[in-house]
Amino acid sequence: MQTATRKKMETLELFHMNKGAGETSYAMNSSVQNTIISCAEAWRKKAIVQILCTSWPEKMGIADMGCSSGPNALRVISEIVDGVYATTRLLERPPPELVVYLNDLFANDFNNIFASLPSFYRKQRQEKGSGFGSCFVTAVPGTFYGRLFPAKTLHFVHSSSSLHWLSQAPVGLEDGSGRALNKGKIYISKSSPQCVLDAYSQQFKNDFSSFIACRSHEMVTGGRMVLSFMGRTTIDPTSDHSCYQWELLARSLMSMVSQGLLEEKKVDCFDAPYYAPCMEEVKKVIEKEGSFMVEEHDAYEIEWDGGMELQSDSRGEKVSRTARAVLESMFESHFGPHIMDELFRRFAQHVEEHLSNNDTKSINLVVSLVKL
Amino acid sequence: MQTATRKKMETLELFHMNKGAGETSYAMNSSVQNTIISCAEAWRKKAIVQILCTSWPEKMGIADMGCSSGPNALRVISEIVDGVYATTRLLERPPPELVVYLNDLFANDFNNIFASLPSFYRKQRQEKGSGFGSCFVTAVPGTFYGRLFPAKTLHFVHSSSSLHWLSQAPVGLEDGSGRALNKGKIYISKSSPQCVLDAYSQQFKNDFSSFIACRSHEMVTGGRMVLSFMGRTTIDPTSDHSCYQWELLARSLMSMVSQGLLEEKKVDCFDAPYYAPCMEEVKKVIEKEGSFMVEEHDAYEIEWDGGMELQSDSRGEKVSRTARAVLESMFESHFGPHIMDELFRRFAQHVEEHLSNNDTKSINLVVSLVKL
Repeated sequence: MQTATRKKMETLELFHMNKGAGETSYAMNSSVQNTIISCAEAWRKKAIVQILCTSWPEKMGIADMGCSSGPNALRVISEIVDGVYATTRLLERPPPELVVYLNDLFANDFNNIFASLPSFYRKQRQEKGSGFGSCFVTAVPGTFYGRLFPAKTLHFVHSSSSLHWLSQAPVGLEDGSGRALNKGKIYISKSSPQCVLDAYSQQFKNDFSSFIACRSHEMVTGGRMVLSFMGRTTIDPTSDHSCYQWELLARSLMSMVSQGLLEEKKVDCFDAPYYAPCMEEVKKVIEKEGSFMVEEHDAYEIEWDGGMELQSDSRGEKVSRTARAVLESMFESHFGPHIMDELFRRFAQHVEEHLSNNDTKSINLVVSLVKL
Repeated sequence: MQTATRKKMETLELFHMNKGAGETSYAMNSSVQNTIISCAEAWRKKAIVQILCTSWPEKMGIADMGCSSGPNALRVISEIVDGVYATTRLLERPPPELVVYLNDLFANDFNNIFASLPSFYRKQRQEKGSGFGSCFVTAVPGTFYGRLFPAKTLHFVHSSSSLHWLSQAPVGLEDGSGRALNKGKIYISKSSPQCVLDAYSQQFKNDFSSFIACRSHEMVTGGRMVLSFMGRTTIDPTSDHSCYQWELLARSLMSMVSQGLLEEKKVDCFDAPYYAPCMEEVKKVIEKEGSFMVEEHDAYEIEWDGGMELQSDSRGEKVSRTARAVLESMFESHFGPHIMDELFRRFAQHVEEHLSNNDTKSINLVVSLVKL
């Protein structure tokens, strides 16, 4: 394996949301992801009813792919379990044995989730009383671009704010002599050459196709998936909506380069393992793979700060803290820990300035699939 | 629920081996448990061959109950996977899909295990080449005295150095006015009144019986368990072998009481949630529950320091560091963190003195069971 490729993969092996529950932790800075989870709540409820209306498994496998840590992880699970129980009451049937699989990369802070499990179980027993049957919450660490479960294990698969992360940054972002083709940038931008855009699009197609193929083996016929991730509404991948935060991050890095705080080549050789697809790309992959049917899909706008009311922070600070909680482990391993405070301070400023003059929003895609 | 009982249970909810990989971590101080794991290696290999000779599951569920963290957790799994592959080659059949469930309490350091999983998978693929099929390692946090898996999920269950931990310290160790019946002691001792001995024995019977009954639901017919835990060879539960380390810990605590470093009532109201049963007690529980047959059992002596060659440490220091890695979270929540260094320094001295004049050893029981 080429050094560059291996390095890209190893970086991702260590990738994780910021651990613990401190000021820069993901647990304390994931309200944007929580808003995104809320947007797909009705989709999940509907999928669960549809699964249980067409079959009544004795044992129901439920997976959250890219569960992260902090309050969002168990919030999703809690809501899904509620959905199953509401349906069992409606249809007057006994609840199936539930097995809930929480998946994320090896370096995810599973300890943080497990610490909240005793109170999760207590709450379930209190709310559901004597009707609360078996519910087993387990962790399955590893990349969801590979197999994670035995065949025909899963009935419902959920994923939120995860599938825009590629298995690795695209290869082929250098010319023949190893010079970066996307100089001064860390993701697709308006000035990116066509070959860079193509490499990103191809990497997404390969990865998303692997995801779909693996789940196809692991899911039962009639099983359902609700997937939600960052995307775009335009065919043009350089539209502001989908890549402008990366543009501002690149500007923050380059402003540090211009002041001698960072080497330019460090920026040139960093490529974000991220891609915000349009729905056409998503649907094409699903159709080509052939084992799932798209039942519904939608795209909606999300404020960069999640649209929640701000306490003391400026919008720039909030967006920067959200980004830092997600990106720090990845940026730290490439740029070094010493520049993190300064980088995210500059990023907060750039975001604040940008949002005071522009109403740029993120686009989130949701797609609901049935296993054929 | 009575306050004392609830407090005892909550303490155990937070119980865990010392986390991380530092000087006092379990990862760095678990060679005694590693020795104990080695003693049952042949038992595990035999059980795996027997399972695969009588049935050939497409999907084989393997659980390690009380896996802890550090190198021992994946060492056991690695050896079990090797055993399955050796048997498949011998019998010239394709390997089943393996699902490995690592179980321990909610506060166990699963992050530490998961960090080693990428190299575990790489090693498996390297060693087994193209013949390496599916092997999915997952974590199932929770007490093994309750249900952890859906019905008929498991083919092989392993547990080492775990089942001597009770679900809680026995209740009824106070007289009618709430005074401790086991004054100045933290476990069974030669001076313990009969009611204390009975309460411990009863708590073990209840807990071990729950363990067996839960696994009975979760295991397939013909499935096997190899269980290994601290015990005793004598009917008398106050024999030196099984309780003398607790005696020396109590002496260390009481020496701090006598110097005003600790309140006496703190020692009086602490009861270790531990019991070292004799094989008769174990067999009676299994027979009474009725769904397993004891195929083999054995008891053997283990040096307090595991019998490994010492580097710079004295035997007392080694025994004390091993005990601290296991007990610190439990002792800290009761006695406070400030006395830990001093307590385990005194314990090391007591052990050193004791072992220079005595050849006291621990007793480990192993039992191999078949699900009827």
